[in-house]
Amino acid sequence: MQQIKNGGLEVEAAMKQLQHLPFEDLGYARIDHHRSLRSGMPEVIFCPGKSEPQILEIFGSLLKSGVNIIATRAEHSTFEAIIQVYPEAKYHQPARIITLEQNQIERRGLVVVVTAGTADVPVAEEAAITAEMLGNKVERIYDTGVAGIHRLFACRELLDTARVIIAVAGMEGALPSVIGGLVRTAVIAVPTSIGYGASFGGVAALLAMLNSCANGIGVVNIDNGFGAACLASRINRIGSLEDEAK
Amino acid sequence: MQQIKNGGLEVEAAMKQLQHLPFEDLGYARIDHHRSLRSGMPEVIFCPGKSEPQILEIFGSLLKSGVNIIATRAEHSTFEAIIQVYPEAKYHQPARIITLEQNQIERRGLVVVVTAGTADVPVAEEAAITAEMLGNKVERIYDTGVAGIHRLFACRELLDTARVIIAVAGMEGALPSVIGGLVRTAVIAVPTSIGYGASFGGVAALLAMLNSCANGIGVVNIDNGFGAACLASRINRIGSLEDEAK
Amino acid sequence: MQQIKNGGLEVEAAMKQLQHLPFEDLGYARIDHHRSLRSGMPEVIFCPGKSEPQILEIFGSLLKSGVNIIATRAEHSTFEAIIQVYPEAKYHQPARIITLEQNQIERRGLVVVVTAGTADVPVAEEAAITAEMLGNKVERIYDTGVAGIHRLFACRELLDTARVIIAVAGMEGALPSVIGGLVRTAVIAVPTSIGYGASFGGVAALLAMLNSCANGIGVVNIDNGFGAACLASRINRIGSLEDEAK
Amino acid sequence: MQQIKNGGLEVEAAMKQLQHLPFEDLGYARIDHHRSLRSGMPEVIFCPGKSEPQILEIFGSLLKSGVNIIATRAEHSTFEAIIQVYPEAKYHQPARIITLEQNQIERRGLVVVVTAGTADVPVAEEAAITAEMLGNKVERIYDTGVAGIHRLFACRELLDTARVIIAVAGMEGALPSVIGGLVRTAVIAVPTSIGYGASFGGVAALLAMLNSCANGIGVVNIDNGFGAACLASRINRIGSLEDEAK
Amino acid sequence: MQQIKNGGLEVEAAMKQLQHLPFEDLGYARIDHHRSLRSGMPEVIFCPGKSEPQILEIFGSLLKSGVNIIATRAEHSTFEAIIQVYPEAKYHQPARIITLEQNQIERRGLVVVVTAGTADVPVAEEAAITAEMLGNKVERIYDTGVAGIHRLFACRELLDTARVIIAVAGMEGALPSVIGGLVRTAVIAVPTSIGYGASFGGVAALLAMLNSCANGIGVVNIDNGFGAACLASRINRIGSLEDEAK
Amino acid sequence: MQQIKNGGLEVEAAMKQLQHLPFEDLGYARIDHHRSLRSGMPEVIFCPGKSEPQILEIFGSLLKSGVNIIATRAEHSTFEAIIQVYPEAKYHQPARIITLEQNQIERRGLVVVVTAGTADVPVAEEAAITAEMLGNKVERIYDTGVAGIHRLFACRELLDTARVIIAVAGMEGALPSVIGGLVRTAVIAVPTSIGYGASFGGVAALLAMLNSCANGIGVVNIDNGFGAACLASRINRIGSLEDEAK
Amino acid sequence: MQQIKNGGLEVEAAMKQLQHLPFEDLGYARIDHHRSLRSGMPEVIFCPGKSEPQILEIFGSLLKSGVNIIATRAEHSTFEAIIQVYPEAKYHQPARIITLEQNQIERRGLVVVVTAGTADVPVAEEAAITAEMLGNKVERIYDTGVAGIHRLFACRELLDTARVIIAVAGMEGALPSVIGGLVRTAVIAVPTSIGYGASFGGVAALLAMLNSCANGIGVVNIDNGFGAACLASRINRIGSLEDEAK
Amino acid sequence: MQQIKNGGLEVEAAMKQLQHLPFEDLGYARIDHHRSLRSGMPEVIFCPGKSEPQILEIFGSLLKSGVNIIATRAEHSTFEAIIQVYPEAKYHQPARIITLEQNQIERRGLVVVVTAGTADVPVAEEAAITAEMLGNKVERIYDTGVAGIHRLFACRELLDTARVIIAVAGMEGALPSVIGGLVRTAVIAVPTSIGYGASFGGVAALLAMLNSCANGIGVVNIDNGFGAACLASRINRIGSLEDEAK
Repeated sequence: MQQIKNGGLEVEAAMKQLQHLPFEDLGYARIDHHRSLRSGMPEVIFCPGKSEPQILEIFGSLLKSGVNIIATRAEHSTFEAIIQVYPEAKYHQPARIITLEQNQIERRGLVVVVTAGTADVPVAEEAAITAEMLGNKVERIYDTGVAGIHRLFACRELLDTARVIIAVAGMEGALPSVIGGLVRTAVIAVPTSIGYGASFGGVAALLAMLNSCANGIGVVNIDNGFGAACLASRINRIGSLEDEAK
Repeated sequence: MQQIKNGGLEVEAAMKQLQHLPFEDLGYARIDHHRSLRSGMPEVIFCPGKSEPQILEIFGSLLKSGVNIIATRAEHSTFEAIIQVYPEAKYHQPARIITLEQNQIERRGLVVVVTAGTADVPVAEEAAITAEMLGNKVERIYDTGVAGIHRLFACRELLDTARVIIAVAGMEGALPSVIGGLVRTAVIAVPTSIGYGASFGGVAALLAMLNSCANGIGVVNIDNGFGAACLASRINRIGSLEDEAK
Repeated sequence: MQQIKNGGLEVEAAMKQLQHLPFEDLGYARIDHHRSLRSGMPEVIFCPGKSEPQILEIFGSLLKSGVNIIATRAEHSTFEAIIQVYPEAKYHQPARIITLEQNQIERRGLVVVVTAGTADVPVAEEAAITAEMLGNKVERIYDTGVAGIHRLFACRELLDTARVIIAVAGMEGALPSVIGGLVRTAVIAVPTSIGYGASFGGVAALLAMLNSCANGIGVVNIDNGFGAACLASRINRIGSLEDEAK
Repeated sequence: MQQIKNGGLEVEAAMKQLQHLPFEDLGYARIDHHRSLRSGMPEVIFCPGKSEPQILEIFGSLLKSGVNIIATRAEHSTFEAIIQVYPEAKYHQPARIITLEQNQIERRGLVVVVTAGTADVPVAEEAAITAEMLGNKVERIYDTGVAGIHRLFACRELLDTARVIIAVAGMEGALPSVIGGLVRTAVIAVPTSIGYGASFGGVAALLAMLNSCANGIGVVNIDNGFGAACLASRINRIGSLEDEAK
Repeated sequence: MQQIKNGGLEVEAAMKQLQHLPFEDLGYARIDHHRSLRSGMPEVIFCPGKSEPQILEIFGSLLKSGVNIIATRAEHSTFEAIIQVYPEAKYHQPARIITLEQNQIERRGLVVVVTAGTADVPVAEEAAITAEMLGNKVERIYDTGVAGIHRLFACRELLDTARVIIAVAGMEGALPSVIGGLVRTAVIAVPTSIGYGASFGGVAALLAMLNSCANGIGVVNIDNGFGAACLASRINRIGSLEDEAK
Repeated sequence: MQQIKNGGLEVEAAMKQLQHLPFEDLGYARIDHHRSLRSGMPEVIFCPGKSEPQILEIFGSLLKSGVNIIATRAEHSTFEAIIQVYPEAKYHQPARIITLEQNQIERRGLVVVVTAGTADVPVAEEAAITAEMLGNKVERIYDTGVAGIHRLFACRELLDTARVIIAVAGMEGALPSVIGGLVRTAVIAVPTSIGYGASFGGVAALLAMLNSCANGIGVVNIDNGFGAACLASRINRIGSLEDEAK
Repeated sequence: MQQIKNGGLEVEAAMKQLQHLPFEDLGYARIDHHRSLRSGMPEVIFCPGKSEPQILEIFGSLLKSGVNIIATRAEHSTFEAIIQVYPEAKYHQPARIITLEQNQIERRGLVVVVTAGTADVPVAEEAAITAEMLGNKVERIYDTGVAGIHRLFACRELLDTARVIIAVAGMEGALPSVIGGLVRTAVIAVPTSIGYGASFGGVAALLAMLNSCANGIGVVNIDNGFGAACLASRINRIGSLEDEAK
Repeated sequence: MQQIKNGGLEVEAAMKQLQHLPFEDLGYARIDHHRSLRSGMPEVIFCPGKSEPQILEIFGSLLKSGVNIIATRAEHSTFEAIIQVYPEAKYHQPARIITLEQNQIERRGLVVVVTAGTADVPVAEEAAITAEMLGNKVERIYDTGVAGIHRLFACRELLDTARVIIAVAGMEGALPSVIGGLVRTAVIAVPTSIGYGASFGGVAALLAMLNSCANGIGVVNIDNGFGAACLASRINRIGSLEDEAK
């Protein structure tokens, strides 16, 4: 709001203009172009609950606005529909993300993505691909469970150079606690729905992470690799924001 | 009961007659024609758990009684069976409602249906179509999340002219709180099962709505667009009921 | 916002003024005088989590602004502290509400408050006293459980004249379903924490109400008599709002 | 144990014999012929988790022992396999029960099965068919919801002549409370998984029934029509047992 | 309703009379004298949530109507207040029940109350005292855990002579399953809140009982000894009801 | 049963004798002297839910039978009552255990008890004292959280010499996973109720332990140090049992 | 760590070597060959969440290291892919385990696997096959429910000769309590997801086992036959470990 | 580990030294002096579950090591004991924190702490005091609920200058979503246990925050102001760490 240069406009009118400008109304969706312009971030389409034609239309609308695009939780069939129209789009298996990079992304600041097991990789990849699209450098360390903790220690050096660490784990979700005790930087914990029985679709891991004895861990929703990458990106760019502000 | 004009009938007999009159016994279903006659509302068929032949038979029975019909949560295949027999029936996608309007409905009093996201639209449409069939005017405002709250403010005027507002949201379910703080009229909150992980099929949104800091919000079951419309209609018609009573 | 008469003020300045005007900053609390002025409703102090001196200071601040005051969930000891300073304050046992009525309240439109059992009365009284303070006429029907349903039928006439019915019940929470099947007006269901074992502090009643087979019931939080009264009041005054608007 | 006529057998031997006699070991299943002989009840096969060949083998083994057979939760495909070998078997749709009646069953004592809605009928039929196979007379009253309670009152007379009433309901599960307040005999409450959202697969109904304000209601597991019939049968035969004992 | 001898009365008037007769309105409580007259059962006061003066007033009102009285979940201090006015009242420790027997109770039909542990005794006593007041013979078998199952087998004979068995257990709640496998009569399972940690105040026992592999067990709410006794009494008196009917 | 030397006794009589011998009936408690004789283990009194006189009476009864005694979850006031009568009794703070050792206990086989934090010590002490009373050698390693995992590694040698390890942890409960990955012997995991918020009284730790990625961990109830010691003792004595059998 | 023979190596270098040696990095999985070498146990592949090519590659990598292999929760289609390449592999139906035994396994120490019902057999078989692959002798006792407890008593002798008993049960999960009261050795309880309604996918059985009144029972995750076998194996081999240590 | 300068020491010895150095063993607590030295952060004592003498001893031990001290969740009585010995200690009401600042703390980088209501202030103060002790500048914005969202907008400027924002809210927990939509920097969400009924001690707020539609929000445990401050501090110091590294 404070960015509006207000001349002779009355409040009432300014408010109206303000309200109508920053989004495009497709009927079923109101695309917030403003956010993207404001933040330099790509626009994101969360695919579940949207029909294929809807996704295509939003995709097209975003493309016209000139930004880079991420579509998360995308079925491969959705990608096949998009590739017909936008052949530059890419599909990232197993992250289930479609990306289209119109403007080259400069990557700064290291985000390290760690998983406890192999089955956590799809969520980790959602985080990694998203973080890269949001302008972060990304390194991956996969399958380092706490029951074989020496596998994690082998990567100690890489962990120490990270600005942000995203720790992805299902089952008992102990990985972020162990990492949080090893490093001094911010740790983002992503519980995954990997497990069975009393893992309750990731609830066991979620609770373990919220109760971590290693203080200073921020937790996101179960399987929310995307959200973890967004938070990592918000953290990573704190310095840059201040530089811009100067 | 008080509408019965009791002549020389004995209580016992009157009671029996009273009990047998107002519904028709199809064996597996007892159709309450009385309710419809009493209230002027259309009869409603909740499809899940009923076989196609059962739905068709109830549909026919209601049709004969002269009322308008709503069948909710109807598969498209059910509609295809009905359209064979009753070609005037209509299917409302994505609300998954079949309607048949034998008597023209006069619509009075504005109900505004708002959603937080695009994925909440099917539930919102269930509410909107139902409200229209129950004799309410309906306006829709879709995809105004609380994270981009200026999209909601743009519709402030429309919200202020509503008699009842139905706020539909999944995920963190914050929309009704924000609307409840903006308007003075009744707000009905509908949690949806949109989300994943710790949304627990809509429980997160349900709890948020029940705990809203904006007092004066009535909550219905998860995904219960139909129930929200019924409540909106009960509220909207309060004036009319009193006028009738005079 | 739309009520601001904007002369030569610039947006930036107007926004600032707008933001600072409507509330008073006590450090730990920002009192929203604006809401009260805007809606004619009394100001409400929710006592739990506030110290006695804080409650007294907020009470005094509100009093100066000329409105009526409701303090809910107030210990009797809090009332004793308030009565020292403001001898016109009243304590409503068992509702645990303190009120101070500076301006006479005109009561219009009937709200009927019904309870399933005797133990539900404190929550019902919270609803009843609040509704009266908010300008509604209130009638009470207490202790009409669904297991002795004839006690409810005896009050059929009163129920039929209500604009809004607040149904308060713990244990299995079936009362709103039965009432919802009897009347045509809006029913607000208030689950109470009355019960033991598998009532889980009111969860059983809450779930029953959310799953009511009588469509058109709005549910509020467990023991939230206050919220029910706010919703009843929003509904009750719909007509008046429109008259004002003319 | 006390039925064993012990001659010169030593304890050790008697115990062994006792232990080996009453069941037949099929490897994956130990069939308790003793129970059936002891109680005159038919043998029951709970189909889920058993393969078709296993069900067929158990079916055959039971048949040879001369008892009547009930197979519950049976897919129609299972019935088709059984009918090939045992053409006298019958399939009860929608109860999903296969029965084979080798010995004619004398039915004594009335059990009334009531449902709240049409969708509860499959569970009610599981109860009704089972109760009939266990030697009880059964009457059915289906689709009498508490929101249209006059439909239930119409059947008052039948309810009063029942020895046991099985009340089957999903959603808010209020039916047993209302029936429990009307009759003096034992009421067995069966919650069903009918509903959606906050019904949590029948939990809402289960909790309502456990918290019923009508004292003297026995609750069984969600969708457990079979168990309700067993309990009804245990109750119904109390008199007969004593007559036998004389 | 059917018991009303209707002469020249009109329905409307009869209904009104019917509705007003059977209960006495104390303002906060509507005492259902009708139920007691109808069933010959004593009247019951559930004490929690009622003030001492309220309990005393209800106690007096019931006493005048000539019935026997049970007050459950009564603090000893409540008893001390009652004994001042009604010196014939008795307090049953550890059942926490106050009784006053104005009319001698004839006890018929054996109800056996069994507990798994010593800590379950208070709930068992609530059941036992209530059952006696409702006209049942009662025998007690306490502290027979399933981990020392021979203690239960020692009472086999007594179990076999019971018309109804009430099995009371906390912790893993396995007792009713074991008893249900031993006897042919009806078993009522009462989970208790005895246990700690993952017993969740009786939920573990409740779930075990609902999932019992011994079919034909009716479960009541956690710690609901009173409800178990009511159900036992409903079952026990089935024969008598039919004799009366003749 | 198989230990009975059966001479001329008939089954019926033998069974009766068998059933009545092994326990003493105090009315509210049936003491299973048989178990103690059979296993050489001390008798255990679980104090919660038992009155002080009851505990004293059971204490005395056990003492007479000549065994060692453990009373768990004992208030200090209970100990003060016992010490009056049995001055040789000892109170173990913070384990809240009373012991009386009539026969000297020979301790064999090392059980190591480890805790994650200081607040877990009371539960760990319940395990340690119980294990010692059951004839196991015990070593303690307290306050080795997974966030400072080098504190655990310092005790590696001691862990490797243990026959059984009891790992006690609240909060995120990751300790058993880490230990399970380090050692080859059996690990018993005890979740504690230490924590707040989303630890849900130990549920978070319980779930983490059940979902441990280190396979071969046996979990007991929340705060159940006693049960962990019993299991440790059962495991520790496996060799001895076989030696006895020879 | 203590096994490293450290000559002139510096800590830094030793640590690095230590860290890199014991696992092989396949990118998505880090195979811990060290664990296998260290413990003589076969390597285990948990199939869910891994693609078929990944499973094949891990299978091959393990095979080269010379160990025996277990792949759990394997679809039959996975086995068909493996059998193409490794024709010596075996599929164990219904355990859903693929094994390949390169080195003959010597089986020592008896583990008895017991189930409550037939439907629990797949989980029991996962435990049994795993235990055999881990070098334990295994006996199976299937379908001995607590409602027909004499079926269990018939196997008393076998139970008494076991070093470890694995008790597998769904529904009310009472089996381990009953066995724990009969035997003196360690009992491992495996809850299964067998049941419906309020069994909540095995939660009822899990809670019952955690709350068992038979002390000294170690519980594993729902359906975790594999984990139970690992724990049984850790326990069974305690003696051998000490012999090795000598 | 990598900081150890290893001369002629052997691995074994170095490891031992490494393990024993960094903590002090008080028996019930192992104080990790290493962590504090390593990170420059103050040492923290979490008071619940520790006795007063234990807290005093740990306090003294830390003091000697020369660091600043924070004791969280401290009763005022604990402070009174500490002030006797260490008169420079300070008690922060309502944060319930005791601090002792031996070395002056330089505060850099702005952390803004926002609350939804007045009752959330104690948790916010725990965050604020902790953050200040950890070397962050802190600004407070209290009582800005989402139902009166203009109160939040008034502080827009302050929010924009923050490096990290800690958003503290109970009830429906919508505040972080709204703030997350307004700002570009990292937002840490702290659910509080403020609320009643279906807030379930903060679970409603926790779930809302985990499901926030504003991506990039890190959630900590309910009421965990301390953990939020630790995370804020980790984030805030990222730049400094890199400067140090140069």
